[in-house]
Formats: sequence, C-alpha cells, structure tokens
Amino acid sequence: MTSELYRCTATQILTKIKAGEISVKDYATSLLERIAARDEAVQAWAFLDPAYVMEQAKALDAVPLAEREPLHGVAIAVKDVIYTKDMPTQFNSPVYNDHAPKIDAGSIMVLRQAGALILGKTTTTEFAATTVGPKTRNPHDSKRTPGGSSSGSGAAVGDFQAPIGLGTQTGGSTIRPGSYNGIYAFKPTWNTITREGQKIYSLILDTLGFYARSVADLELLADTFAILDDVPAPKDFTVKGAKFAFLKTMVWPSVGSGTNATLDKAVSLLRAHGAEVEEITFPEQLNNLPAWHATVLASEGRTAFLPEYTVAKDKISEQLVGHVENSDKITRKAQLEAFDNIAAARPVVDGILSRYAAVLTPSVPDEAPLGIERTGSAAFCLIWTALHTPVVNVPGFKGEHGMPIGVSLVAPRYHDRHLLAVSKKVGDVFEVEGGWKSAV
Amino acid sequence: MTSELYRCTATQILTKIKAGEISVKDYATSLLERIAARDEAVQAWAFLDPAYVMEQAKALDAVPLAEREPLHGVAIAVKDVIYTKDMPTQFNSPVYNDHAPKIDAGSIMVLRQAGALILGKTTTTEFAATTVGPKTRNPHDSKRTPGGSSSGSGAAVGDFQAPIGLGTQTGGSTIRPGSYNGIYAFKPTWNTITREGQKIYSLILDTLGFYARSVADLELLADTFAILDDVPAPKDFTVKGAKFAFLKTMVWPSVGSGTNATLDKAVSLLRAHGAEVEEITFPEQLNNLPAWHATVLASEGRTAFLPEYTVAKDKISEQLVGHVENSDKITRKAQLEAFDNIAAARPVVDGILSRYAAVLTPSVPDEAPLGIERTGSAAFCLIWTALHTPVVNVPGFKGEHGMPIGVSLVAPRYHDRHLLAVSKKVGDVFEVEGGWKSAV
Repeated sequence: MTSELYRCTATQILTKIKAGEISVKDYATSLLERIAARDEAVQAWAFLDPAYVMEQAKALDAVPLAEREPLHGVAIAVKDVIYTKDMPTQFNSPVYNDHAPKIDAGSIMVLRQAGALILGKTTTTEFAATTVGPKTRNPHDSKRTPGGSSSGSGAAVGDFQAPIGLGTQTGGSTIRPGSYNGIYAFKPTWNTITREGQKIYSLILDTLGFYARSVADLELLADTFAILDDVPAPKDFTVKGAKFAFLKTMVWPSVGSGTNATLDKAVSLLRAHGAEVEEITFPEQLNNLPAWHATVLASEGRTAFLPEYTVAKDKISEQLVGHVENSDKITRKAQLEAFDNIAAARPVVDGILSRYAAVLTPSVPDEAPLGIERTGSAAFCLIWTALHTPVVNVPGFKGEHGMPIGVSLVAPRYHDRHLLAVSKKVGDVFEVEGGWKSAV
Repeated sequence: MTSELYRCTATQILTKIKAGEISVKDYATSLLERIAARDEAVQAWAFLDPAYVMEQAKALDAVPLAEREPLHGVAIAVKDVIYTKDMPTQFNSPVYNDHAPKIDAGSIMVLRQAGALILGKTTTTEFAATTVGPKTRNPHDSKRTPGGSSSGSGAAVGDFQAPIGLGTQTGGSTIRPGSYNGIYAFKPTWNTITREGQKIYSLILDTLGFYARSVADLELLADTFAILDDVPAPKDFTVKGAKFAFLKTMVWPSVGSGTNATLDKAVSLLRAHGAEVEEITFPEQLNNLPAWHATVLASEGRTAFLPEYTVAKDKISEQLVGHVENSDKITRKAQLEAFDNIAAARPVVDGILSRYAAVLTPSVPDEAPLGIERTGSAAFCLIWTALHTPVVNVPGFKGEHGMPIGVSLVAPRYHDRHLLAVSKKVGDVFEVEGGWKSAV
C-alpha cells in the first residue's frame, strides 16, 4: 500500500524504511501525491519543490544501511521563520520576498544530520508575530482557521501531508494550532532546543516546538535534540493511580462551551481510568501573568523589529510598528517589573506543578473559529510560554461543530520527558474515548 | 591632513563629511593606509577587502546630501560572529570556513540604513565562547593579548584602524578588551539591541556592545539603536556634587596591583573633583553570582552547540564539547536554581545601583597579560552580564608595564543613557588625569 504511506507516523515509517520494505523515494512519492491532492484545499506550504524533495529522497536512499541516522527518511515540515540553506525563508513578510540565504538554522542542522528529509517551508503569520492568518485553511473544515502562527505546520501534520512539523511559540503559536488541527503539539521547556536561525520576536518567550500525530514521534524528536530530564521518564507510568490537577487559570472567563465540555470530559475520563484529579487554582498574586506577558512581548518586540522598521517601515504591520514606536507607552520600569515578576513566578509555579503527574488546562478557548483572517486566541497558552514550562496538546475531543479540541498537559520546567511519558498514556485514553476522530 | 583622518572619532569625521571638507573616499583611504601600515603588528581582521571598502565609500559619496543618514560614512569594525551579507562570517571555527551566507544581522541592517561603512570582520575567539586567543595582538604591546572574545574589534579601535567596533559579551568579552586596549566599551542593558544574526552562546547572557574612543560616539550609536531610558539623561551632569560608589564585589581577591591602584586613583580623582564616593558591598546572598553565571553559561551552551557537535564534534573545542556532553554534570535543578537566583538578584542590584550616579568597579584584574594564547580573565565582568545592567569601560589609567587599565561604571538596567552621560564627564577626568596616554 505505497499510496497510503503518507498516513504513517514518523515512527511507523522508520520501521518500514529500516526493514527495507520501502524506499525513501516511495515514501516521498506518497507524501507528494497527498500534498498534490490536498494543497488547493489546505494551502499549508510557503515553499515546496517536489523535484527537490525527490532529489533528497534519492540521496537518502543512496546512503548505505550501516551509515543511516535515527531519522533516516522522516519527512519534516518547517515553519517559514526557520532558516534552511536550500529553500527560501520569507517570514510571510514583503521585506523578505525571495529571501534565500544559504544557511541552516541550528535545529535544521541537527535534523539533517539525523537523516531527516526537509519537505518544505510552511506558512506562518508575519514573523510569527501577528494573528493575521496566512492563506492556510483548517484541514478539517476549510472555512476555519488552522490557528497560528504555526499555521502551515499544524495544518500539514493534521492533514497527513507531513508526519512531523516544526512550530514556534511566543504566545500560543504551537499549542493553539495543535488543538485546532487535532494533533499532538509539544512546546518544550524554553531554550532546550537552540533557536539559532529562527526569527526573533521575544528572546525570553520564543520557543521552538513540534507537531506530530503520536507521542512516540515527539519522543523521537526529543531524543534527536538530546532533551533530558534529571530523572529518566517512568517507563511504566499508568493513568490508574496517578494524580492530576485541573487548573482553570485566570483566563477561564474567556472559555467557550467546547473547551468547557472538553475539560469536563477529560477529567471524567481520567477519573474513570483510576486517576485522581484535583481542581487547583493559581495563587492570586499571579493573576497579572497575562498582562506581564503582553508587556514583555511588546517591549521585546520593540527591540526585535527595529531593523525591519528602519529599513522598510511601510512593509511591516501596524502591530510591529507599534512595538517599535512603543505606542503603548510602556515604561522601562513597567517592562522590568513584568520581566522580573514572571521570573519570580517560574519557581513558584514549578512547585505547584511538581505535585502532579501533569496539570490539565485548556489549550484554546474553543474549536477553531470560522474564517481564516484571524488565527484565534492564545489566551490560555501564553501563561505557559512566559513560565517556560513544557506543554503538550493532547487531541481527542471535539466542539459543537465537530472540530477538534485538545487539552494542554503541563509539567515543571525540564520535566519534558516525564511530560511526554504521561501524555502518551493520557493520549491513549483521550484519542479512543474523547469523541473526536480525524476524517481527513 | 587627509592622511591623519583615521585618528578622528566617528563624531569628528561626521562633522567633516557633513561640512563637505572631505569625502568618504578620503576617509576610507586614510583608514586603509593605517590598516596597511599596522596590520602585520596587530592582525585585527578576519576579513577585510580594501577594494570593496572603496566601493562602499564611492557609493556613499554618490548619495545626495539631502538623503544622507546620521552615520553617513562612519566606518565600523564588525566582530566575526555577526552576519554581514557581503562578507564571510566564520566565527573563528573550522566548521564555518568560508561560510558566507547573504544575510545581514539586525544590528547591521540598522547600521547600513544609517549610512555606516562596514569596514570588515574582526577576529574573535571560537564562537565568542572560549578564551583561546585568535591571531590578534594588543596594539600597545604586541607581546600581549588584546583580550577577547571581541579581540579584533577592541584592537582595531584601540589602534585607530576603525573609530567604532561591534563586540559581544557573554562573560567579559566587550568590557575586557575595552580595558586592555585603552578605549571606551559599552555593554548596554541586555536585549536593548537585537541579537538577530549574532551567534548564540547563551540567550540570557549574550549582549551586543560597542567600542569607541569617545563617549560621544557611544551616544551616537545609542541614538542609532533607539536606546532610551524612561527619563532623558541629564545634560548638565557634573562630577562635582555627584554621588558615586566603589564596589569591590566578591571577585576582589583576584585583583592585581594595577587594578588595585587604578581604582584607588579613580576614587581619589572623583573626590578631588568634588564627588562623594562611598565604598559599598554586595549583599552576602549574592556571593554565588559567579558560580550561577558559570552554571547558566554551561547549561545554555549545552543547547547552543548541539548543532555543531552533531555535525562536526571533532572541529569544536573541548570546552564546547564539554557543554554539550554536560561534562560538569550540572543537573536541571541546579541549572534552574542558578537561572532563577540571577533573575531574583537583578531587581535587588538595580535597587543598590540606583542610589548613585554610577558605581565604580574593576573591568579586569590587571593590565593585559603577556602572550596571545589566552585572552585574560572575565571575572569582574560576568556578574554584570548576568545582571543585565549597562556597563561602560572608561579608560585613562595604566598598570605597572604602562599598559592601559579601565574602570567599569555601572548603572541599573535601562539607565543606559544616564550611564553614558555620567561616563562622559568621568572620562573627561580620567583621560586627562588618570596617567595613561595612547602612544600608537
């Protein structure tokens, strides 16, 4: 069934390639056929050259078996804010039309060395910084947004056009498309993966993340990037007997009916499988976390976009002009208070999170909204971006219109492998009993 | 005196160019003659193409007067860890031999747009990360190191081969060469200038900085990069009546006789000019700042150098291999404690610093040591890198062998313009009465 290879996860395809059942060319052909069939509806790609994909596949097939690396032949969709030496990197900005420097981001160096096949570049909002959607549509309903800013990577993985995608998150840019497209999304602890060669919005917030359709694939990527906790993740974790928490956070008033029902069901399912789930709240002194995030974002954006503002102010969006001109009149004093208060909150929140196998919290207010002009709200994600904690979006639920909704699982900083191990078992439950199945 | 134009500061040369007294070509010719005469002794450049410099100068001369930007024709030396689209960027690493992607760092975009003439790329230690010196020699004594990692920029500005240079600092890489080469060095508050396109060692430590031979030039650059405090810097600051502090820090036991005498003299001079100078100490709970810095550095280096380690482990230095392999066995717990403790120290130290016009503290243990194999100790600088505060090295003093020694002036975060205003008046005193005069 070569024609259905595109449905495989990375882990599945690796097994087939290693066993000599299929070639990388077979696999690439299947993916390209899928892309050709679906591209008009989804439009996930900012750049994709099928001939060059086949050229890479041919080169990978020529590597002797003994010299093959752990990701040999695995196809990866790369968000177009990450440099690739053999493809353009255009940030969805007219300032960088046809921009194609011959440089690989640090993450791409690692992936290529591991044998990955770089499929192409996926759409993003402008500089991964705004909420104005690119051309991409949600694979599960083309009238809806796939979310952003990692729109193309989320949609491509959700639509089986790639098994794995790279995203980035500064507010909710990895986790939100994960929920909207019904896939796993993993935002590791801040700075566990180098951001070298990835466009800067905020140094203290920007985080490279992954999309996949299984936790095993996320673990494969975590291995590739040498993400290690102090203590190896439990191999025998079971939902039964584990202790979870459900945290509504200060953002809860903006929750919609779909996410409300999703969290209820998630908690019930975990309890039904023998877990203890406690409802907890943040300490009140952290109620300003979203405001602190906004302040840090705007003030770091002030620094980040000065070059583009200087060179071509008329070609960058009003939001970014506003950052550079400090239109919110954020004082340095307010900027430092926000920066320092978030820093002080991190160990406090780690302490709370460390009492549980994982903490459940919304990924998004509701299912993907109608329209592709806006990429939806990052309200529930940005807290965790600021706190630097790892987050996994676990899919499995649906909203009123049958669109996917995921749940965020959160753990303390540098408990990434632990969180993946827990997410795997939780995902086994949610995927089977949550009520949503992909129809694409 | 076209032949002596190379001795001008940026501010001086701008006046001449604006007045139509000289062309950018005249100026570039003078600099290139200086470089030709001195390059064998100093070897500050990793890349310099005289013909291309003249080509840039010619293009700048062709710009109509009305369209000229604030730095029109000012020559700048760029540390070779910062991307320039028209020159190689090689990081002093064999992994990047002949690496020349067509991309400008954010800082270079801003400088070019301001009309600067990018002279060439200056030497650095490997990835600005080690203390193994490049080929560069101290202009004031070729048997001695110019310091590092911004070796070439420091030496070029100290030797009148460029009026202004770009450096970076993760430990002491900007301030230390400032002291060793007898020039002003400015490390602004962390992330006031974009690091886009500048090689990463540590996200939370790396800071872009400047060299110049006058504070007016540093102010010119601060204007170019829109560095603004909450309150405009005092225009009428006087040393007389101002309150300073002298802070030995926990690193004082490693002070040498030259720096010891320098600080004594600096304090005496300020007092003689009517300032109050109080000796203060850090709170004891901050005694581990250097250890926390080391922990953060190693653990962020673990992330930063994984790509080069993956691609060419045998071509990167043992120190960097050690970071990636975590040879110091730093736990994630220890890493987070160091990261969080530094974060908690920042507002505490700001509070202390805010009581004074500026705090005086050593830039280096002593004058530049003999030999170019090692770039000297960053012990006195790294605290301030971790604390994100602005620092200016003010030259004017000398050690036992007649080599320059500077003093660090420090202010709270985002008091950069204030610090420059104070440093200007302090520099007027130290340069005249400190006892060191450049003989090159």
